[in-house]
Amino acid sequence: MAGRTHGIHAEPTTFGRKLALWALQVRRDRERLVRARDTIAVGKLSGAVGTYSNVDPSIERYVCEHLGLVPVPATQVLPRDRHAEVMYACASLGASIESFALEIRHLQRTEVREVEEPFREGEQKGSSAMPHKRNPIKSEQLCGLARVLRGNLQAALEDVALWHERDISHSSVERIIVPDSLMLAFYMTEQMTRLARGLRVYPERMLRNLDASFGLVFSQPVLLALIESGRSRDDAYRMVQRNAMRAWQEERSFRELLMADDEVVRALGAARLDACFDLKRSLANVGHTFDALDRMEATPL
Amino acid sequence: MAGRTHGIHAEPTTFGRKLALWALQVRRDRERLVRARDTIAVGKLSGAVGTYSNVDPSIERYVCEHLGLVPVPATQVLPRDRHAEVMYACASLGASIESFALEIRHLQRTEVREVEEPFREGEQKGSSAMPHKRNPIKSEQLCGLARVLRGNLQAALEDVALWHERDISHSSVERIIVPDSLMLAFYMTEQMTRLARGLRVYPERMLRNLDASFGLVFSQPVLLALIESGRSRDDAYRMVQRNAMRAWQEERSFRELLMADDEVVRALGAARLDACFDLKRSLANVGHTFDALDRMEATPL
Amino acid sequence: MAGRTHGIHAEPTTFGRKLALWALQVRRDRERLVRARDTIAVGKLSGAVGTYSNVDPSIERYVCEHLGLVPVPATQVLPRDRHAEVMYACASLGASIESFALEIRHLQRTEVREVEEPFREGEQKGSSAMPHKRNPIKSEQLCGLARVLRGNLQAALEDVALWHERDISHSSVERIIVPDSLMLAFYMTEQMTRLARGLRVYPERMLRNLDASFGLVFSQPVLLALIESGRSRDDAYRMVQRNAMRAWQEERSFRELLMADDEVVRALGAARLDACFDLKRSLANVGHTFDALDRMEATPL
Amino acid sequence: MAGRTHGIHAEPTTFGRKLALWALQVRRDRERLVRARDTIAVGKLSGAVGTYSNVDPSIERYVCEHLGLVPVPATQVLPRDRHAEVMYACASLGASIESFALEIRHLQRTEVREVEEPFREGEQKGSSAMPHKRNPIKSEQLCGLARVLRGNLQAALEDVALWHERDISHSSVERIIVPDSLMLAFYMTEQMTRLARGLRVYPERMLRNLDASFGLVFSQPVLLALIESGRSRDDAYRMVQRNAMRAWQEERSFRELLMADDEVVRALGAARLDACFDLKRSLANVGHTFDALDRMEATPL
Repeated sequence: MAGRTHGIHAEPTTFGRKLALWALQVRRDRERLVRARDTIAVGKLSGAVGTYSNVDPSIERYVCEHLGLVPVPATQVLPRDRHAEVMYACASLGASIESFALEIRHLQRTEVREVEEPFREGEQKGSSAMPHKRNPIKSEQLCGLARVLRGNLQAALEDVALWHERDISHSSVERIIVPDSLMLAFYMTEQMTRLARGLRVYPERMLRNLDASFGLVFSQPVLLALIESGRSRDDAYRMVQRNAMRAWQEERSFRELLMADDEVVRALGAARLDACFDLKRSLANVGHTFDALDRMEATPL
Repeated sequence: MAGRTHGIHAEPTTFGRKLALWALQVRRDRERLVRARDTIAVGKLSGAVGTYSNVDPSIERYVCEHLGLVPVPATQVLPRDRHAEVMYACASLGASIESFALEIRHLQRTEVREVEEPFREGEQKGSSAMPHKRNPIKSEQLCGLARVLRGNLQAALEDVALWHERDISHSSVERIIVPDSLMLAFYMTEQMTRLARGLRVYPERMLRNLDASFGLVFSQPVLLALIESGRSRDDAYRMVQRNAMRAWQEERSFRELLMADDEVVRALGAARLDACFDLKRSLANVGHTFDALDRMEATPL
Repeated sequence: MAGRTHGIHAEPTTFGRKLALWALQVRRDRERLVRARDTIAVGKLSGAVGTYSNVDPSIERYVCEHLGLVPVPATQVLPRDRHAEVMYACASLGASIESFALEIRHLQRTEVREVEEPFREGEQKGSSAMPHKRNPIKSEQLCGLARVLRGNLQAALEDVALWHERDISHSSVERIIVPDSLMLAFYMTEQMTRLARGLRVYPERMLRNLDASFGLVFSQPVLLALIESGRSRDDAYRMVQRNAMRAWQEERSFRELLMADDEVVRALGAARLDACFDLKRSLANVGHTFDALDRMEATPL
Repeated sequence: MAGRTHGIHAEPTTFGRKLALWALQVRRDRERLVRARDTIAVGKLSGAVGTYSNVDPSIERYVCEHLGLVPVPATQVLPRDRHAEVMYACASLGASIESFALEIRHLQRTEVREVEEPFREGEQKGSSAMPHKRNPIKSEQLCGLARVLRGNLQAALEDVALWHERDISHSSVERIIVPDSLMLAFYMTEQMTRLARGLRVYPERMLRNLDASFGLVFSQPVLLALIESGRSRDDAYRMVQRNAMRAWQEERSFRELLMADDEVVRALGAARLDACFDLKRSLANVGHTFDALDRMEATPL
């Protein structure tokens, strides 16, 4: 499929690679969540200002052990950098899911139509007079909810600086943002998983869209081949450029124009020119990304 | 051009309407900026805690008058809700510019290509081997900078709650965010204006993209015409639906399919069917938006 | 009472002045709320992309009029800068209430104890073994909730840039932040009003705390009086300084030290020295702030 | 010194404990910084969309090795969750420093005066007429700058969701926030270290302030002692309460009132009553916190 930078066709890539990069990114967020859980899985039972003035530290140890918590020194309350880390892990996960959902929204555009959110045949009877109107509303929702997670993180970081051995300003905040962020992170993960599992993928549209830029995404291999064939960089560039400009302006196949350009054909020959437009060649090293995925899966979290 | 909701073609609209809505939105931001300027154009010269203990109020009046400021009661410093309002006006303007720039980015996608950021012919020689690669980098930059303005507003709102008659925690913050936000708001406005002035618009691409959904964006007028012709809603819907589904699945013209559907032609006749696909009819009320623009321009800021 | 800058005693001020400044600040927030309500009290009934393609503008006018809304041009949905303004008005009000609540928390500290949140005699039986432990928990809660309002504003500003004629990413966000922010703003206003109405104020503690800095808050009037009496600024400064340093280091009354300093008494005489420590003189211009309050109250919102 | 919750005296604590808790908290932030450095110390040299189409993966390995970076799969650019983690580590550190600086500001208040920011004798000649006016302006500045770090994190998290294989919206943002946040985090750490190193601590003021609540911070040990002596909880409570209320209302020593209360003295005897007011007993378990500090220091980062 077309790789796109700035929304404009660049070199070819594959859809599998996108998914592999998602998997690698979401693994980092899983690590953040695991670390945040470790950071927050602590307890204290050390009295009004944390001095164990009227309670022996052994009580704290006993209770925490039974709750699966690590006892830590504290004031009246645990320091709130721990809670903020949980909110950060949620917000980072949210931003990752947002980036995946944004990709789906782009690929589902009417003009692109390379993937679609899952839907059940016939379920959308209401809009069957407009069968093209399959809206990526779940992906849009996920993009929106990431904003709420960011806003909550902001509040959580403001909660860190409390007065002396505690003030209770953080409490009302946490009653709102902690359940909201945790539930949203859970919900978004569930929904994104469902999206990824049921995603409809249209490989023929991907190939067709590659043609939307008339084969210009292969101009780089042609340029390199001409140089390798002994042409100077300037000459090679000139040959590519005149055909590229025509392809774009006249909306014609770049490849066919090159094939009809005597100077180019003389330099490369048809077979070598063909090879420049060989998707397999462009994607020969794609496996490299999947090796990273294998390594990740071999590494326990 | 195609109106789009959820990135999917909906009913037709016009590019001028988009611009008119931008103008109306930016007017609201101008009003916010004017109000914020009024809010901040105040002064105080009332001593260490604002009591005029060693300075007569007449001095404050005299100085403020010469500076074009309204004297106001204060502590040692002006309350910071005033400064936060300026940061809000910048952030709101930034979000508006972001929404305009986002529209340009979408319309400049390779698959859409209805507008392009301004560029000078031949200036992009470096990438002329890939003449399609005109990247909307200015619009992308504007989308990014809106984020900075939002972050700065956050800090400004945290500055409001100072201790007693002042603490100086706000000062270091304001030295960063006030010049940054004001300069960014100015820069973004300048750049967005340049973008809007020099925007390359491709009406023929707009019309062509309307066909990307095979004329299905006109299914609503066809449905209504069938009902007006005396068909029950269910019958009308069935007639539209069977042709719409075929158009979408076989990638054929919805209009031609309807023209070949005896039941439809019998009900409407060719002329009436034609009228359903008449862009002018769809856009008959577009002037309504421009009337609002006229009214806005007749109203001094 | 002691005016305080940086938490350190500065010149005297009055508690009434603090309240007057609160009233002036909250008036600005009321104006922001009124403007935000005007900004949001608009409606649209113009179809799927806002072109009135299948609905006459007169319908929109009719419906909006009955709902008390101003009809405005739009796409499928109203532009979200309007909603963000409502969230800003809430966040600004929240920051103002936070600043009032922060003042109460400071003044209620054990070492300060100049005001206390309202409580009913005998209601706090549980802690009557620690009768000093009247915690400003309501003020703390109000400080916390302001953070939530700020976070929500952030999300609201991210909602402004939607795709084309609408995407639905804003919707899930608004279902959370709009009711939360409006209810919090209402709740905080109610609670802050209750706090302000029932606040326990201890004038005798205010006067006593003024002595915590041994009268040094009057060093400025003494300095000015010495200069007016004909001493050079340097001489005057030297006289003030030697007594101020002793007062601070030996924790003795600045006034008594000056009274025992021959050079000072010779310059000023006891009566003039007394006048420098006259609170009424320091506060002679305090009425100026209340005039602004009167003007505000005479101006309809 | 007085431990304080809600700004109100609670049980005694020690200043060293506060510092130990700071050290433990800042250690967590150091860990966050180290992890963020690991997350960001990665590189890519895999071409325009990350497919190594025209560059062999061995080149990437070679270059990254020489730069001390780990090569990772990517699109045109590295995913921005990595950069956001760096901004989070800075914001979390900032919030921790803010909480330490806030403590200093509170303890430096005129009414508290238990610590002071470092200053050089005689350096503040300008304000020597007001020798008490040593303002904690560095601590205030640190509190302010934490707000900027939070705002920048917000922008960084918005940068995560880019279009397809990259858009450049993140770039202008990062040019502002990355150097700003890194420099601020460094500056704040330097300044906070200087503050902590040079902090002036006034133990005699700490002891004196303990008396500001007339010894009521020891009401808990008295209550427990009475119960241990065989009194019912209700009786014990009644005895404590009547003396506590008098102490607070008449501003008299709780201890002396108890000593003059026959019922109390009969129950406990003078020695046992004395022991209840023994600071050493209250603080007997404080070493527990320092053990955690020792363990931390024994654990390499």
